[in-house]
Amino acid sequence: MFKINENYLKLPGSYLFSTIAKKVNAYTAAHPEESIIRLGIGDVTQPLAPAVITALHNAVDEMAKKETFRGYAPDLGYAFLRQAIADNDYKARGCDIAIDEIFVSDGAKSDSGNIGDIFSEHNRIAVCDPVYPVYVDTNAMAGRTGDYLPEEERWSNVIYMPCTAETNFAPELPKEEPDIIYLCFPNNPTGSAINKAELQRWVDYALKIGAVIIYDAAYEAYISEDDVPHTIYECEGAKACAIELRSFSKNAGFTGTRLGFAVVPKELKCGEVSLNSLWARRHGTKFNGAPYIIQRAGEAVYSEEGKRQTAQQVAYYMNNARTIREGLTALGYTVSGGVNAPYIWLKTPGNMTSWEFFDYLLEKIHVVGTPGSGFGPSGEGYFRLTAFGTYENTLAALERFKQL
Amino acid sequence: MFKINENYLKLPGSYLFSTIAKKVNAYTAAHPEESIIRLGIGDVTQPLAPAVITALHNAVDEMAKKETFRGYAPDLGYAFLRQAIADNDYKARGCDIAIDEIFVSDGAKSDSGNIGDIFSEHNRIAVCDPVYPVYVDTNAMAGRTGDYLPEEERWSNVIYMPCTAETNFAPELPKEEPDIIYLCFPNNPTGSAINKAELQRWVDYALKIGAVIIYDAAYEAYISEDDVPHTIYECEGAKACAIELRSFSKNAGFTGTRLGFAVVPKELKCGEVSLNSLWARRHGTKFNGAPYIIQRAGEAVYSEEGKRQTAQQVAYYMNNARTIREGLTALGYTVSGGVNAPYIWLKTPGNMTSWEFFDYLLEKIHVVGTPGSGFGPSGEGYFRLTAFGTYENTLAALERFKQL
Repeated sequence: MFKINENYLKLPGSYLFSTIAKKVNAYTAAHPEESIIRLGIGDVTQPLAPAVITALHNAVDEMAKKETFRGYAPDLGYAFLRQAIADNDYKARGCDIAIDEIFVSDGAKSDSGNIGDIFSEHNRIAVCDPVYPVYVDTNAMAGRTGDYLPEEERWSNVIYMPCTAETNFAPELPKEEPDIIYLCFPNNPTGSAINKAELQRWVDYALKIGAVIIYDAAYEAYISEDDVPHTIYECEGAKACAIELRSFSKNAGFTGTRLGFAVVPKELKCGEVSLNSLWARRHGTKFNGAPYIIQRAGEAVYSEEGKRQTAQQVAYYMNNARTIREGLTALGYTVSGGVNAPYIWLKTPGNMTSWEFFDYLLEKIHVVGTPGSGFGPSGEGYFRLTAFGTYENTLAALERFKQL
Repeated sequence: MFKINENYLKLPGSYLFSTIAKKVNAYTAAHPEESIIRLGIGDVTQPLAPAVITALHNAVDEMAKKETFRGYAPDLGYAFLRQAIADNDYKARGCDIAIDEIFVSDGAKSDSGNIGDIFSEHNRIAVCDPVYPVYVDTNAMAGRTGDYLPEEERWSNVIYMPCTAETNFAPELPKEEPDIIYLCFPNNPTGSAINKAELQRWVDYALKIGAVIIYDAAYEAYISEDDVPHTIYECEGAKACAIELRSFSKNAGFTGTRLGFAVVPKELKCGEVSLNSLWARRHGTKFNGAPYIIQRAGEAVYSEEGKRQTAQQVAYYMNNARTIREGLTALGYTVSGGVNAPYIWLKTPGNMTSWEFFDYLLEKIHVVGTPGSGFGPSGEGYFRLTAFGTYENTLAALERFKQL
């Protein structure tokens, strides 16, 4: 008789955003007359940049002709894209990343889940609290997190690093030693960032204890302050301890277009074994590449026009972030984030829990955000708003907040 | 100190097609004057159908406009595509598959590797021998295959089901009881097919012993004989024991466009737990959907024009298959496959091993095929040719065979 992966049965409830979607659907079914403003899920709203659209059309035309048709892509991704990544995201920042250390994928969500494949079940993970749920859930599926303790809303074998107002929404080095450390900066969900010296401390720590850092830099394009690192490889020694995950979702609006990449440096080793070779094997065996036309779209993001146009999109969203941050601050809310990230992290007013505030906003002003507690127990009493709406909706949402 | 997944270290050598590519590259570097004809890897050569190209352009235009831009896709895939699949691939064949039993993915290779996530490490798998290497390698990565025994070219804890001339290239029910059975019909690499009564025996067997069948039907579009089932759900009881994997790669030339789907029926259960709910959780947590524009391309495959145009592509490749099969038979080779599949399975002449014949063809006539032994020990003495080349190259390759 076949046996299922019992770890799946330990997962509590359903995925955060599914729960939100169900609540919103139930509300709109009961109140079809109300218009909902969604500042919850981190989905973008601006169309793809013209340079990307042109590249997509051109690539589609190539697929229409025998002479230029493309079948299976190279295992790691097309060299034209990996070269553009190496030049623009790394060389331009003084980081030496070779193109065979870059693995093109269908996005950072897949990568952040799949990366666990190359690690043993017997690793203890450390995560920020609050945290993007995918890191924890995928480790739970792999049997690395122990048991879920419902009263504590925590897993028994995970090291949680609280990120609260007291820590300036950044994690402190944990007291217990982890094997794998997940860091995401600029941070989802809190919108916080750390400077280069602070990130260097993490790299030094990982090197000292022999841990690997999974560094999620999906929001890198939103950095506005000078001393915030754009990649972990700006730190000394990071190539020997860190894997970096990047995405085209937020810098170029590819949430529905799907493209990302992982950097796995050859220096990163466990004994004699290079993690680069393990990930290459995984990539070649369980994945068959991102579509050719999407890889061409990714390349266009790095063209002069593409850079200019996507920078405008980022500026558009960051103007929303500023609008929300300043608007809510003026209304007396305690707000952080929104300076180097498209997320605003808001202290719930009164003694409301995160979900109470969610229900309150949905019912009173029909604005949807994300309850902080959905990202972990230290998110309780906080609430995430995103800057990815339209400017008009962002203003309209603020107007509604004024009526509360 | 972090620990890697040691199972990766047990994997022998590198992936079959990488080895072939290296040999071919070495040969062409030494003999730049020779023109190589590649009938090895299963990659298509015909451009995408006009209906698919039109759908791609239209979808790209939608992504260019705020009003029609699409962000994150629904977890299971867009309903427009899942409905087209349910209607055309299942309802039209008398099979009742609901659209929430269909999970759109980036292709059957990913699915055939990822599907293992929802099963325990403690399952014994049965595979055909020869077999598509991904089934075995991904199970080895998950620790289900025991140790690799180099002398035997087998894993210690896998049930191999030999498919040779003696078994008419179909597996026989195994003597030892497996928990998970991988079947691929029409078959890669042998090109063989089984009829409905034969497949029903497998379904009955799986139901009897409580095994699950992973049924890879990627080559379904190549079926030309009436009594060969197009989906395992044509068999009585299959919804309680089988997961079906499908691909757009071979029926519509999507090898570089990437689209596929898995069918996980709700009736398929382990005790009280529905595998459909486990796969939904995996899909929603570790994957973020195939690109919107690619899902629209998939939908176009099911339009009237799309069906007609892709059927022409399949007919083109099957004409190649017939040409190779009849041509080699006339030259005295022992040949099978190529009737319900784009693969020709050829007995190596004399006492040549599969790799000896590979080197012989590469050196003497510069034709590249795939050594049967690369698919498993029972493939030794066989050789795979594919019908996915151009008609001109197929004819040219046959002319070269005549000169041997």
